[in-house]
Amino acid sequence: MAKPKKTPRPKAQTPKGFRDYFGAEVTRRKAMLDTIAGIYHRYGFDALETSAVETVESLGKFLPDVDRPNEGVFAWQEEDKDWLALRYDLTAPLARVAAQYRDDLPSPYRRFAMGPVWRNEKPGPGRFRQFYQCDADTVGAPSVAADAEICAMLADVLESVGIARGDYIIRVNNRKVLDGILEAAHLPKDSGDERIEWQRGVVLRTIDKHDRLGDAGVMDLLTDGRTDDSGDRTKGAGLGRDQVGLILGFVNGRQGSIAETLRRLEYLVAGSQTGLAGVEELQTIAKLLTAQGYGPDRIVIDPSVVRGLGYYTGPVFEAELTFETLDEKGVPRAFGSVAGGGRYDDLVKRFTGQEVPATGVSIGVDRLLAALAAQDKGDAQEDDLVVVTVMDRDRMADYQAMAADLRRAGIRSEVYLGNPKNFGNQLKYADKRGAAFAIIQGDDEKARDVVQIKDLKLGARLAETVTHEEWKDQPAQFECPRADLVNTIAQRVKRR
Amino acid sequence: MAKPKKTPRPKAQTPKGFRDYFGAEVTRRKAMLDTIAGIYHRYGFDALETSAVETVESLGKFLPDVDRPNEGVFAWQEEDKDWLALRYDLTAPLARVAAQYRDDLPSPYRRFAMGPVWRNEKPGPGRFRQFYQCDADTVGAPSVAADAEICAMLADVLESVGIARGDYIIRVNNRKVLDGILEAAHLPKDSGDERIEWQRGVVLRTIDKHDRLGDAGVMDLLTDGRTDDSGDRTKGAGLGRDQVGLILGFVNGRQGSIAETLRRLEYLVAGSQTGLAGVEELQTIAKLLTAQGYGPDRIVIDPSVVRGLGYYTGPVFEAELTFETLDEKGVPRAFGSVAGGGRYDDLVKRFTGQEVPATGVSIGVDRLLAALAAQDKGDAQEDDLVVVTVMDRDRMADYQAMAADLRRAGIRSEVYLGNPKNFGNQLKYADKRGAAFAIIQGDDEKARDVVQIKDLKLGARLAETVTHEEWKDQPAQFECPRADLVNTIAQRVKRR
Repeated sequence: MAKPKKTPRPKAQTPKGFRDYFGAEVTRRKAMLDTIAGIYHRYGFDALETSAVETVESLGKFLPDVDRPNEGVFAWQEEDKDWLALRYDLTAPLARVAAQYRDDLPSPYRRFAMGPVWRNEKPGPGRFRQFYQCDADTVGAPSVAADAEICAMLADVLESVGIARGDYIIRVNNRKVLDGILEAAHLPKDSGDERIEWQRGVVLRTIDKHDRLGDAGVMDLLTDGRTDDSGDRTKGAGLGRDQVGLILGFVNGRQGSIAETLRRLEYLVAGSQTGLAGVEELQTIAKLLTAQGYGPDRIVIDPSVVRGLGYYTGPVFEAELTFETLDEKGVPRAFGSVAGGGRYDDLVKRFTGQEVPATGVSIGVDRLLAALAAQDKGDAQEDDLVVVTVMDRDRMADYQAMAADLRRAGIRSEVYLGNPKNFGNQLKYADKRGAAFAIIQGDDEKARDVVQIKDLKLGARLAETVTHEEWKDQPAQFECPRADLVNTIAQRVKRR
Repeated sequence: MAKPKKTPRPKAQTPKGFRDYFGAEVTRRKAMLDTIAGIYHRYGFDALETSAVETVESLGKFLPDVDRPNEGVFAWQEEDKDWLALRYDLTAPLARVAAQYRDDLPSPYRRFAMGPVWRNEKPGPGRFRQFYQCDADTVGAPSVAADAEICAMLADVLESVGIARGDYIIRVNNRKVLDGILEAAHLPKDSGDERIEWQRGVVLRTIDKHDRLGDAGVMDLLTDGRTDDSGDRTKGAGLGRDQVGLILGFVNGRQGSIAETLRRLEYLVAGSQTGLAGVEELQTIAKLLTAQGYGPDRIVIDPSVVRGLGYYTGPVFEAELTFETLDEKGVPRAFGSVAGGGRYDDLVKRFTGQEVPATGVSIGVDRLLAALAAQDKGDAQEDDLVVVTVMDRDRMADYQAMAADLRRAGIRSEVYLGNPKNFGNQLKYADKRGAAFAIIQGDDEKARDVVQIKDLKLGARLAETVTHEEWKDQPAQFECPRADLVNTIAQRVKRR
């Protein structure tokens, strides 16, 4: 008889493109989310938590015109044939909620949401298929006062999580001004002319890269084309000198005071209704922010901000961290964008047919955490840990009682629960846990009703600096009466 | 030419079996999770956050022996043919992590995790396909000291979220004792006898229902069978009187002190090695808990606890809320189980082939929230909100500056951002938002540099109790200098 085939053991593996977060990584992100939620809440935004799963129909963009509509999303088909998918952002679920509960929600509806979103993309270094977003949006407020409020709130958020004033700048632009400039440059929206549509596309993509390419690079791309460092040739848009001049004037529009910037923009878009409306909106935003004390040291008008997403219809904004860090190649660079958003007036309309004005911001929590870490500000702020060691396994009740006493005083503490035979392993364990203190009570200490306290952090410091002789005096270990254990430790631990 | 077919509008609908959580529902659950995390952390447990997605292979139980392995889970196939699924609990991912990182994690590894899990089940009233779990587990600790620690922690958790001592009881049993009883009753484990296997199954299911059925019902089910109120007949296990006697003695084993209960159990399992080992473990747990001050007013030994899950191998425990609430039919009932867990020594072995002892608890956060609400303890604890109304749309900057001033003093406040034309709508909005105060400044007030403050909560109370004449005096509305706005409100608002 053939031997029955054994089921092979499953592989213990995080799925490709996903990751696990341990201890302080979790705590640190949670602390940041809490801080941000606090600011959002103070601005009158209400929490909303939708489920991770939406119907593909309501998510949109990913309608099942193919057998398996998993372009960009994780999707599956229900037994009743409906397609479900994991949300890919927090804006699509908001649009669904705003439509579904439109009779019950206050209008305007300010809401914040935070949580993971999923993208079915090829994972790459530092690019994961599940990541956190942290959004605030106002639905139903047509006035740019709503946009101004969100910019002010974004500044408050950045400072509250630990980005110093001066280390960030919020740059505000308006899609309408951009449309006006392109109109003035004879590249109007919806012209129906294929060549103009293509040229507009090139211009938008190029403006977005102005930071990196500079004027010369932009000029090349807008005229004859450009050969990059690797020798790759990009075809130019073939624009004329007057067109390029307008666009470069626009991109470099942020010069001098906000008033000067706005005057320049007004001049450049002259003749375009849309453009002038956009400049007026920027003017209003600047005025509202100044009145609340948010000056150009925090929020500026900057025509070079485009924002990739196609659905923006008015003000757009981006928060950039301006301090330098070393990039992958060790070159100092400004840290760059950590949040952005803008006005999108058509997303709810998909469901209801009625236009519902909306504006919002999304904060890249993981980028922001990385930024704080780069500034050495991302401290874990975990409580000091006390490990009670086990010298006599029959006295486990005593050791657990010590830990319970410490905890009752608010001190993080635990008993070693592995095999207590090898005491060295217990100290190695305490070390691996990053414990601040180890408590030891063997027969001798028990008889005298005392405990030994090992200050592991001091011990580690001493081990680096003192001689063997001094080390032998064990200044980092001392004893105290069992009855004084809690007080002795309480005076020494660091707590949140 | 045929008119181009319009794409129908998508339905704005939460997918079946899922739900949306608004405002205080989110805040309340978050506050509870934070409190629980605080206790877990103080016990030395470290946070772990795995992604929502696991490979079907590592989740186990749901191996792709059918084309679509979505029995009970939401699963989908990747382009590279791998099956992925949403986690259905937090224990399976822990087993995967414990195996995957076994060389890096401290051992024992105490970890806590909280977050949504997903079940692909038929949704029912109050039964959702996404819900929260909040677990703590110790992996790598064979000693029942680990189980005792988790029971103590569970008691601390319940009290810290607001369940009073006396309103809950943690009941502890041991699967080994149960196995011993069944051995003594000639229903041994792994007998290979089909009838005995079936009888064991009936016995386990019946013991689990002892609460509801009482001795008589259990006796019927273990012997000839039982006809329930609806006339449905359940076949009996056909056991003899001596067998039933043993089992009933066991189920009713919790009588008198813990020592008496243990003595009774010891007597009943006499002759079964497994059973005696189980009683000894219970004895140790009771001793450890007593030493830490957790007496029988909080934690008891109760042989009627079975716990459904098949993977438990030793101590099992359940937290029950003992106060009465009205059930769906208006009948007063004990609230019932809100948390449970136990020892499972085989889950990590699936991956590594090596036995890894583990024990843990899972708290039903939503049940616990419902329990607190039933006790009127689930207050939202939201900050009071101030709504600044808009009397003159050209003076938006002034109104936003008022809100900004209030927020700087830590007061939750917002400006009305809808169409300001109809002032009544603004007050209706403030009402819908549950605002505590409305701020009003029209031309007249502006000229005198004052603001009107409407105490909306006082106003609502007065409206219920005073006459129209008194109401006209508007005692709930008063004015103060603009410069005193922040101080005046600060003295009156409730903050967290």
